[in-house]
Amino acid sequence: MQEGLLLIISGPAGVGKGSVCQALCRHNPNLYYSVSFTTRPPRPGERDGVNYLFVDEQKFMELRDGGSLLEWAKVHGNYYGTPAHLVAQMRKEGRDVILEIDTQGARQIRRKFEDGVFVFLLPPTMQDLLRRINKRGADTPEEIKRRFVAAYRELEEMEIYDYLVVNEKIEEAAFNIEAIIAAEKCRIGRYRDVLKQLLEEGDEFDLSLY
Amino acid sequence: MQEGLLLIISGPAGVGKGSVCQALCRHNPNLYYSVSFTTRPPRPGERDGVNYLFVDEQKFMELRDGGSLLEWAKVHGNYYGTPAHLVAQMRKEGRDVILEIDTQGARQIRRKFEDGVFVFLLPPTMQDLLRRINKRGADTPEEIKRRFVAAYRELEEMEIYDYLVVNEKIEEAAFNIEAIIAAEKCRIGRYRDVLKQLLEEGDEFDLSLY
Repeated sequence: MQEGLLLIISGPAGVGKGSVCQALCRHNPNLYYSVSFTTRPPRPGERDGVNYLFVDEQKFMELRDGGSLLEWAKVHGNYYGTPAHLVAQMRKEGRDVILEIDTQGARQIRRKFEDGVFVFLLPPTMQDLLRRINKRGADTPEEIKRRFVAAYRELEEMEIYDYLVVNEKIEEAAFNIEAIIAAEKCRIGRYRDVLKQLLEEGDEFDLSLY
Repeated sequence: MQEGLLLIISGPAGVGKGSVCQALCRHNPNLYYSVSFTTRPPRPGERDGVNYLFVDEQKFMELRDGGSLLEWAKVHGNYYGTPAHLVAQMRKEGRDVILEIDTQGARQIRRKFEDGVFVFLLPPTMQDLLRRINKRGADTPEEIKRRFVAAYRELEEMEIYDYLVVNEKIEEAAFNIEAIIAAEKCRIGRYRDVLKQLLEEGDEFDLSLY
């Protein structure tokens, strides 16, 4: 069985990463959305094990120092990290894994997984991003400003990504990411085995018969 | 307007390139299928200007030496070449252009167009390829053998391609190439202008207001 893809989705806070990932998983049951550990307190409506695995800082450091995290990052004062074991297992079972992580984490993954597929989700305009950040409502003005400045800085780090997808409409952005998944499965680098098999078959033919 | 993609589709004779390209053009009217010049005599049912632009060898050499061909190749004793002017014009109008060409031609395009998208169409098995070549019926046994050996040799040249698509069912192969087109339009290298615009917009914000 072919190993599943490792799909990294990043983008500024407020761009709609969560909604796009939900749409992707709804359309495609072969996708596995990796739930991250975080030391951030749950927002209203967030559930442990669904949105995040909520842990305290001591537990997080144990996981990190014990090699249980594929990547980790400190963002806006909170820690986030991806459970390594589950991601490896799912990919081995042929499932495509989505990591919704920030640019710090993406850089760590890029170094470890050459075959990862890196997607950066963009707002249609910066005004639009600001509107979305404001709409969330749960944050203080200082936090909004910090997030917006961070979002803006992140745009300058896009060169480590393979693809940019503009999230104007969620379904369109999801459609483009689905196309990226299908296309990446056709990349020549992922086909070495099939190619080898075809060449071996060819060697077995007695061409003088034809 | 963003320039259209240049999509190169190659694959062994008999793999079904023509049928897949027809399906692609049927699904997507923005695609422009580039009709090649050839010195090969028309097969039954082939029409001048639709399947090929049929020319004699003298005319072909005039076109080639006058710089009117984007690429050219000699395959099984016949010349084939792509009209340069029309391809450039269509891409400028935002249409994605398909070139159905052989590996010789593809290598020439690869050198000239870094942003070309190179797709190699594969048979599911070599037996299957042989069956398809035999079914065509218009060729002599010697020609069938020559084509099969050439097909087999071509498989060893695949490293210049970006994608491999297995043509087991025409509609599935077309679906995968459509995904490749959509994904390639999201490639970070094609997005430099949008990115620049977003960063300029960001510069105009007075962040102290937020």
